[in-house]
Amino acid sequence: MDPDAVAKAFVDHYYSTFDANRAGLANLYQDNSMLTFEGQKIQGSPNIVAKLTSLPFQQCQHSVSTVDCQPSGPTGGMLVFVSGNLQLAGEQHALKFSQMFHLMPTPQGSFYVLNDIFRLNYA
Amino acid sequence: MDPDAVAKAFVDHYYSTFDANRAGLANLYQDNSMLTFEGQKIQGSPNIVAKLTSLPFQQCQHSVSTVDCQPSGPTGGMLVFVSGNLQLAGEQHALKFSQMFHLMPTPQGSFYVLNDIFRLNYA
Repeated sequence: MDPDAVAKAFVDHYYSTFDANRAGLANLYQDNSMLTFEGQKIQGSPNIVAKLTSLPFQQCQHSVSTVDCQPSGPTGGMLVFVSGNLQLAGEQHALKFSQMFHLMPTPQGSFYVLNDIFRLNYA
Repeated sequence: MDPDAVAKAFVDHYYSTFDANRAGLANLYQDNSMLTFEGQKIQGSPNIVAKLTSLPFQQCQHSVSTVDCQPSGPTGGMLVFVSGNLQLAGEQHALKFSQMFHLMPTPQGSFYVLNDIFRLNYA
């Protein structure tokens, strides 16, 4: 398993799902998952998806600029650090964002998101 | 222990040490520590400090804008996500940066940096 390839595949899947159907992100999170969104802390897949689907825009498009990844230690997890641009429908300028994910292995050989921290980078 | 207070104290200590004496960061890293600096992967405290002390500027000043933290799972670690500005001596404009740290507990009751990912956020 090439960690960089896994990270890249996760990032592609995450943002394409986010941009097409945010509710479809539910199965990437579990009950112990945490999201910190612009400083607001939310726990558990249902609450996280409720937050993401209630964001005050209908359509958006993420463009990823950089993806960095590292193994997170003895639990077999992986840290994924993303920077990019977020274009909201009807807005002239894209917003810059940074986001980190802590992916943990599942018994099925996949990964789920244990930690997710998102910040807009204001110019 | 208030995780947010620990994260804030770590961030204050890290950047004040970075800005005053980068070589003093050596004891925050261990042999298994990893740094990804603008995409370059470096492992181990001596190599990480060699990278940080060889950066092509003498004086700098970090200003932290946001600090987010989450527990990283069963190992007792903590994820710290920072955004801020980096002012280099002699440069007119500050650079925006994002950085994440994965802190792991030490037997002495402190923390060391297992994972460190740094990116400049270009406008």
